[in-house]
Amino acid sequence: MNRISIYDSTLRDGAQAQGISYSVEDKIRVVLKLDALGVHYIEAGNPGSNPKDLEFFERVKALSLRNSQVIAFGSTRKVGVDAADDGNVLSLLRAGTAAVAIFGKSWDYQVTDILRTSLDENLCMIVDTIRYLKGQGREVVYDAEHFFDGYRANADYALRTLAAAAEAGADCLCLCDTNGGTFPRDIFEITRGVVERFKRPIGIHCHNDCEMAVANSVMAVQAGATQVQGTINGFGERCGNANLCSIIPDLQLKLGYPCIPPASMANLAVVARSISEIANMPHNERAPYVGGDAFAHKGGMHIDAVVKNPASYEHIDPDQVGNSRRMLMSEVAGRSMLLARIQAVEPSLGKDSPETRRIVDRLKQLEHEGYQFEAAESSFELVVRQILGKYQPFFELQEFKVIVNEPSINGVNSSVMIKIRVGDQEELTAAEGDGPVNALDKAVRKALERFYPEIGEIRLTDYKVRVLDSDMASAARVRVLIESTDHRENWTTIGVSTDIIDASWRALVDSIEYKLVREQERRAAGLKLVLQS
Amino acid sequence: MNRISIYDSTLRDGAQAQGISYSVEDKIRVVLKLDALGVHYIEAGNPGSNPKDLEFFERVKALSLRNSQVIAFGSTRKVGVDAADDGNVLSLLRAGTAAVAIFGKSWDYQVTDILRTSLDENLCMIVDTIRYLKGQGREVVYDAEHFFDGYRANADYALRTLAAAAEAGADCLCLCDTNGGTFPRDIFEITRGVVERFKRPIGIHCHNDCEMAVANSVMAVQAGATQVQGTINGFGERCGNANLCSIIPDLQLKLGYPCIPPASMANLAVVARSISEIANMPHNERAPYVGGDAFAHKGGMHIDAVVKNPASYEHIDPDQVGNSRRMLMSEVAGRSMLLARIQAVEPSLGKDSPETRRIVDRLKQLEHEGYQFEAAESSFELVVRQILGKYQPFFELQEFKVIVNEPSINGVNSSVMIKIRVGDQEELTAAEGDGPVNALDKAVRKALERFYPEIGEIRLTDYKVRVLDSDMASAARVRVLIESTDHRENWTTIGVSTDIIDASWRALVDSIEYKLVREQERRAAGLKLVLQS
Repeated sequence: MNRISIYDSTLRDGAQAQGISYSVEDKIRVVLKLDALGVHYIEAGNPGSNPKDLEFFERVKALSLRNSQVIAFGSTRKVGVDAADDGNVLSLLRAGTAAVAIFGKSWDYQVTDILRTSLDENLCMIVDTIRYLKGQGREVVYDAEHFFDGYRANADYALRTLAAAAEAGADCLCLCDTNGGTFPRDIFEITRGVVERFKRPIGIHCHNDCEMAVANSVMAVQAGATQVQGTINGFGERCGNANLCSIIPDLQLKLGYPCIPPASMANLAVVARSISEIANMPHNERAPYVGGDAFAHKGGMHIDAVVKNPASYEHIDPDQVGNSRRMLMSEVAGRSMLLARIQAVEPSLGKDSPETRRIVDRLKQLEHEGYQFEAAESSFELVVRQILGKYQPFFELQEFKVIVNEPSINGVNSSVMIKIRVGDQEELTAAEGDGPVNALDKAVRKALERFYPEIGEIRLTDYKVRVLDSDMASAARVRVLIESTDHRENWTTIGVSTDIIDASWRALVDSIEYKLVREQERRAAGLKLVLQS
Repeated sequence: MNRISIYDSTLRDGAQAQGISYSVEDKIRVVLKLDALGVHYIEAGNPGSNPKDLEFFERVKALSLRNSQVIAFGSTRKVGVDAADDGNVLSLLRAGTAAVAIFGKSWDYQVTDILRTSLDENLCMIVDTIRYLKGQGREVVYDAEHFFDGYRANADYALRTLAAAAEAGADCLCLCDTNGGTFPRDIFEITRGVVERFKRPIGIHCHNDCEMAVANSVMAVQAGATQVQGTINGFGERCGNANLCSIIPDLQLKLGYPCIPPASMANLAVVARSISEIANMPHNERAPYVGGDAFAHKGGMHIDAVVKNPASYEHIDPDQVGNSRRMLMSEVAGRSMLLARIQAVEPSLGKDSPETRRIVDRLKQLEHEGYQFEAAESSFELVVRQILGKYQPFFELQEFKVIVNEPSINGVNSSVMIKIRVGDQEELTAAEGDGPVNALDKAVRKALERFYPEIGEIRLTDYKVRVLDSDMASAARVRVLIESTDHRENWTTIGVSTDIIDASWRALVDSIEYKLVREQERRAAGLKLVLQS
C-alpha cells in the first residue's frame, strides 16, 4: 500500500467557511495540534492576500515541529508580470517556508472568461511561477484548480496544464474538484489516467457539494494518488472540504494505507473536538469516527446486540480513534446498558441488587414524567448517586422570585431575587439579565460563588427546550436540556416541569451539582495520590 | 436511466437518532411533507416495538396521499414461532398499510451469535414471514440487514438469504450496509452481482459511519439498484442514514436518474428545513444542496468569479433545489417560492414590484435577527400584510409584568398583570398559570375576549424553543415556534428575542392576530356571498 501524505488546509481553505475567523494565536494552537497528530503538510495561509498571515509565518518559524511542514499558499503570477516581480509570489518567499503551494487554472473557460487571458499565457504563468520558486529552493505543490471540470470540458488542455507544471519541476500535482460536482467513478478513472501519465506524486483536493468529498478522496487514492488535501472536521467554503477526520481512519484503519503515526490515531477525536473549539464552531456530534454520537446506540435490540458483541453495530472499535461507546438511555433501551451505567458509579451492584431495582423504578417514574436521559447522562448519574447515598446536595434553595417587565424598566427586562442556604449559612442576592433564565443563571452563580469559587469555570454552551404533551401547548410540560463545559469535560443535564423557569432551574442546578461532584472527586483523587507518594 | 424509487425512513430509522422523538402530530406533518415532495415510500414506524405507532397508523389512513405509500416496518418472525402467531408480524398487519418492510439476518455470525439459532431456521424465518405477509395481500420489501458484512464473511450464505426472500415472493430485496463500514467500490461490485443474479428490484440502505453513505447509495444505483432508502437530512442512529437530500439531486440533477416529480425538486430545501424544525434538530447549514451555506461565497476572488459566471464556483444552479446564492449577507431562501407566498396575499405583485423589494428587504432584516419563516408561514403572511397595508394590529400592548415564585404561593407559581388597548378602550387584567408563558397566554386571552370572542376557539397545540447563538447559552437569542389550531386550520407563528418570555409573547400575538385576520376574511367572504345571492 502506498504511504499517503496528509495535507491539511484547515487554516487556509477551512478559514473560507462561514463563521470561521482565526486569530494568529488560534493558528499557532492549530499548528501544534496538527503536528502532534502527525499530518505531513499544514497549509497555513495565503501571505499574498492576507498581510496578517506574514506575522503568523514569522511566529511559526520559532516552533520546532516534529512531523509537519508548514506551507504558504498563493497563486501563479499575474497575467503579463514577471514571476520575480509579482507581489503575490514574492510574499510566498517572504513567508520563509521550505514548501509552498500555488494554484493555477486548468479549465479553459476559467482562463478565457475569468482570468481573461490566452490559453498559452496561462501555461506560461504556471511554468514561470513554478520554475522561479524551484530556483529559490522551494518544494512546490501545484494545485490544478477546477481540474475535473476542466477535464470534462477540454481534457487535452487540462492535461497540458499539468504537463506544464511537471516540466517546470512541481514536486506534486494536485487535482482539485473545486466546485465539488464530480462523482467517485469519474474521479477514479480520471485520476488513474493522470497517475499513469505523469511520473510524480499526484494529490487530490475535494469539496463536499455532492456529499462525495470523502468518497472521492478515497477513490483517488485507490486510483494511485498519494497526497490527500482536506481539513479537520471538513471545515471549508459552502459545504466544506474533504473531511480528514473521516479520510485518515478510512484509509489507515479500514483500507490499510499508512497516513499518520499509528499511535496518533487514538488522539483523533480529541484533536477534532479541540479544533472545533478553537474555530468556535459547534462540533458535529454526528460526524463519523470523531462525533459524540458516532458510537451511540439507542434501539433496545441494537443495544442488546452490542453488549453481546460490539461488532454487531460498530464497524470499528471506538477506542482506535479515541472515541467511546455510548448507550443512550431511552424507553427503547435495554436493561443491560442501564446496569453498565450504574456500575460506573458503584461497580459492586449487580442486575438483581435491590439498589438496582430502586434505580430502575425511579428511572421509570422520571421517564413517565417526561425525563429523557439519553442525552442527559450527567443528570442520570446524579439520580444514581442520590439513590445510592453517594451524593449530598451542595446547597438548598430557600426561594426565588423572577420578575419580567414589558416594556423594560431602564433597559432591564428580567430580575431575580434568590435566597440559598449552604450548611448553616444563608445567602440572599439578586441579578438582572436578558430574560428570566439568564437572570436566574446569574443570580444562582452569584449566590454560590463565595462557597464554591470553581463554579466560575462553568460555561453554558447550549440550551434546548422541547414541549412534551404538545396538546396542552403553553401549559404543557417542557423538557430543558442544558449543555455545560469547563474545558476539561462537557456535560448535559435535564429538567422537566410545566413551568419553563422551573425546568430550566432544575437543569441549571444539576449542571452546578455535577461540576461540584467532579471537583470533589478530583480533589479526593489528588489527595489519594499525595498520600500514596 | 432506471427510474429510482425513493424510500424514506426519516420517521423510523431517523427516529433512532439521538435527540429525535416525534409526537404523532409531528409524524403526520412529516408524512404530508414527504408526500408533497413525491417520495415513493414512507417507512413510518414499527408498530410491533412501539404501541404509540398504532395510533399513528390509524390516523394516517384518513390522509389522501398523492404520491407516497406508507410502510409499516418490522422483523421476521421469532425463532420457533409460527408467522401467523407472531405478535410483531400481526402488528404489521394491524397497521393496515398496503406495503410492509421486514428485516432479516444475512450475516451468519448474527444468526448464530446474536439470534442464537441455526442458519437453516433463519432461512425459514425469512421464507415463512414473507410468504405469510404476501398471503395477506401485502407488498413486501425485504431488508437484508448487515448484507455487506455478511457477504464478506460468508457470501454463499448471504446470497442464500436473498434467494429465500425472493423465493417467498418479496417484491424488493434491499441490501443494507447496517454498520456503515463498506466502501464504494465494494458496494458497486457486490450490488452488481446481486442485480445480475436476482430478477427483481434491488434496493440499497446505507449508513454514514465512514462518511460514504451517499456515495455508496449512488454507486449501488450505478450498479443497477432501483430503490434507495435513506432519511431527510441524513437523520439516524450514530452518524446517520444515507442523506436523501443529497442523493435525490445527485441522482436526478447530476446523473439523470428520475426520482421525484421534477417540479418538486425546487421544494427540496424548504422540506429539508421544515423537517429539521419538526424534529427539533438544528438544520445543518453546511449540508449539500439544502444547507444555508451550500451556495454561500466568502472569498473575494470567488465572489468576483461567481458574479461573472456562477458556474465558476457552483456545481448547480441553487434555484433548482429551492436554495439560493448568498454573498456576504444572508439572501432570502427560494425567490420563486417567496414570490408565490407574496402573491397569495396580493396576486397583482410581480418579481420587480417595489412592494416585493420592500418585503424582501424586511425579510432579510428579520432573518438576520434569527427569524426563520420556513416553518412559520403565518407569521410571514402577517409581515407581508403589514408591509402592504393589508392589516391593522387588532390590539396594542401597554405593558405586562410577569412574576414567578419558587416555592409557589398557595399553589400558584406564575402570575401576570397585563394592560392592553383596543381602539380607545383599555383593559387591565391578570391571570395565573403553570409557568410564565401559560400565565401570559391566559392573561392576554382574558383581556381580549370581550373584544374578540372568537379567540376562545384558539387552541395552542405545540410550543418549540430553539437557541440561536448557542455559545452564549442562557443569554442567547431564542426562537419560539407556536402551533395553533381552531379545528378549521392549523397555523404556526414565530418570535425571536434574547428573552424567552418576549419571544413567546411575539409568537403568541402573531397567533392571535392571524386568527383574527382569518375571521375578518371569512366574514368578508360571507358578506360577499350574501350580497351576491
